[in-house]
Amino acid sequence: MFEQIFEKVRQKSPLIHNITNYVTVNDCANMLLACGSSPIMADDLEDAVEITAICGGLNINIGTLNQRTIPAMFAAGKRANELGHPVVLDPVGAGASRLRTDTALGLLDQVRFAVIRGNISEVKTLASGRGTTKGVDADVADRVTEANLDGTVWFAKNFAKRIRTIIAITGAIDIVTDGERAFCIRNGRPEMSSITGTGCQLSALTAAFVTANPDQPLEAAAAAVCAMGLCGEIAYRRLTDQDGNSSYRNYIIDAMYRLIPAELEKGADYEMR
Amino acid sequence: MFEQIFEKVRQKSPLIHNITNYVTVNDCANMLLACGSSPIMADDLEDAVEITAICGGLNINIGTLNQRTIPAMFAAGKRANELGHPVVLDPVGAGASRLRTDTALGLLDQVRFAVIRGNISEVKTLASGRGTTKGVDADVADRVTEANLDGTVWFAKNFAKRIRTIIAITGAIDIVTDGERAFCIRNGRPEMSSITGTGCQLSALTAAFVTANPDQPLEAAAAAVCAMGLCGEIAYRRLTDQDGNSSYRNYIIDAMYRLIPAELEKGADYEMR
Amino acid sequence: MFEQIFEKVRQKSPLIHNITNYVTVNDCANMLLACGSSPIMADDLEDAVEITAICGGLNINIGTLNQRTIPAMFAAGKRANELGHPVVLDPVGAGASRLRTDTALGLLDQVRFAVIRGNISEVKTLASGRGTTKGVDADVADRVTEANLDGTVWFAKNFAKRIRTIIAITGAIDIVTDGERAFCIRNGRPEMSSITGTGCQLSALTAAFVTANPDQPLEAAAAAVCAMGLCGEIAYRRLTDQDGNSSYRNYIIDAMYRLIPAELEKGADYEMR
Repeated sequence: MFEQIFEKVRQKSPLIHNITNYVTVNDCANMLLACGSSPIMADDLEDAVEITAICGGLNINIGTLNQRTIPAMFAAGKRANELGHPVVLDPVGAGASRLRTDTALGLLDQVRFAVIRGNISEVKTLASGRGTTKGVDADVADRVTEANLDGTVWFAKNFAKRIRTIIAITGAIDIVTDGERAFCIRNGRPEMSSITGTGCQLSALTAAFVTANPDQPLEAAAAAVCAMGLCGEIAYRRLTDQDGNSSYRNYIIDAMYRLIPAELEKGADYEMR
Repeated sequence: MFEQIFEKVRQKSPLIHNITNYVTVNDCANMLLACGSSPIMADDLEDAVEITAICGGLNINIGTLNQRTIPAMFAAGKRANELGHPVVLDPVGAGASRLRTDTALGLLDQVRFAVIRGNISEVKTLASGRGTTKGVDADVADRVTEANLDGTVWFAKNFAKRIRTIIAITGAIDIVTDGERAFCIRNGRPEMSSITGTGCQLSALTAAFVTANPDQPLEAAAAAVCAMGLCGEIAYRRLTDQDGNSSYRNYIIDAMYRLIPAELEKGADYEMR
Repeated sequence: MFEQIFEKVRQKSPLIHNITNYVTVNDCANMLLACGSSPIMADDLEDAVEITAICGGLNINIGTLNQRTIPAMFAAGKRANELGHPVVLDPVGAGASRLRTDTALGLLDQVRFAVIRGNISEVKTLASGRGTTKGVDADVADRVTEANLDGTVWFAKNFAKRIRTIIAITGAIDIVTDGERAFCIRNGRPEMSSITGTGCQLSALTAAFVTANPDQPLEAAAAAVCAMGLCGEIAYRRLTDQDGNSSYRNYIIDAMYRLIPAELEKGADYEMR
């Protein structure tokens, strides 16, 4: 199934509009190109709405949000909704500041998202309306482990059901659910968290996968999460004893560029709960 | 000839001011350093005008233009004109939105450019005043091929003559013309389009080459286009079966850093039409 | 001593807030992760003040300052002061434009910095209140050499004493002083200046080191400078004859990721003056 989903990305080469942070934007663009998609970035209010219309999907990432780009996020999100384009939200740092929490909650209120992709602390912030996030990484206390997996799946399903959006919580174990079914994914490497922006790249990737597979958004989101993790594994095997997080970043994008849909099918490591 | 032109870049080490997009700005900076030039970036209205004055050339790229940076582009462009500094325009996405098209046309109207470097769709948008660009890549229908090369050279020459600016249209075959003579350049690799920002890097590079060679702007622009394509070829030969677009990006910049002027002379693949 | 200082960074993993330029921000984030710290970036006025509060230290870099981010720099700096967090200033291009000089001087006036890290031209601009900087690199006339080292140490000590701030002047020879003691550091490679943002990365690194070692700010700043230079040396030895400045950038960050505190102790090359 993931094979066909990934093939669709390569065949359709969806154009993805990204309103995203300036920290990891270059890696997001190269990751989109690596998977077979095309990136475009616009964050001026006027421009963002028009660019949304020529794209197939929209990825909103609040990593370096500001008073100028927030209105562009709302307007582009609404325009994408009108056009029936899938929209992905990456609520970077929701819970770490009022502006981030309020913006993410406001977007949830006014824009219909296909997928929300965040770490457990960010998603808990969105679900509860208040946050305890320390920075842009998940709180240690929140982390998804085998011990709390069932509880976290239950939480994710409930939240997904309530807001009618696919929830993708990524961490040591990833959970992707539409409220009914949950993919629990064990692809990936812990070392990926030593690279800035692997989460941002995954959100962009998710937008591409969901845009190319409008009839299977849950499976497409899960395929994107598996693909990112699998590339993290492939790239990890390539590391020499001189390589560190910067080369690892390059190798993960390289791995996506080289990844064959059949490999994704074979390498995807998940169970349903 | 290209040997001497490139040597001048290395000798003079021109300081290039870039008002450019935040997606590919880091690669533009490293590409400028790789060729022997120095980059500086400023996009605040007040700052941009002053920084323009301490530089030798200006590169304006509208990739992530906004209401704050557009006035800086106009003001810096006019200041560079007053000072007699060459200005390069990269009209990223002209034709893809009204803001991009209008800004590029407005800049053409108020700033005298030494070189405009874009893909065929962007340049056609500027020439006709309206656009059909889908995103930041050239439309398939527009692409320059052997079959339509003569027609495209004719179009480029006419446009160059009309606006008295060197036009550099890059794609599978690149055309660089001042309206009288046209370099048709076949350096480069199709895989370069799987890296974000090779066009942006080339525009920055062109600014450096033209600034260091004020008496030969056409040859300098053509040399920059050949150099970029040649580095794409050199870097391509270096790719292993694990490398993808992210390593390729690094290798192209590396190749420019290592490129010897005599190699450019020897490797440049062009004809005049 | 540097061994223990670096170990503290790895143990405490300080969260560093960076208000920095969009040219080198990704490398700053990966460098912070490489050393064991965590980065977060916010530059909206409202957001920046709140994010400052959840972090341990603040790094202000004026590389692409603008009218929107300048107030965020002032407000975040003052908030960090209230909280007793160390603040690092990287006065990129001070002396190259009035806005940069005035902003840096204004910050010096209103924010208490733990460390100012810049090249000799930038620091001279801050000390004299006026500048001669040509771009973002040090003027040739200013460069620190063995011949003028004693004079530059004298200048740096006086300035550090006057403003009660640690001054880190980096170049061929680096000087780190609190006004009483001066570390003269000879780690590093001249080729590091062919990479954009090694200075920016060092400023971010300095913020991490000083935040993790609040009782030894001078030694921590000197350790950061030695660590950056040492990684430049390690990465240089790794370069093949195909590698250039882009791979070198990756290798330096990789080297920091792999650097063991005992290696820093052993490889640090400095004398006290």
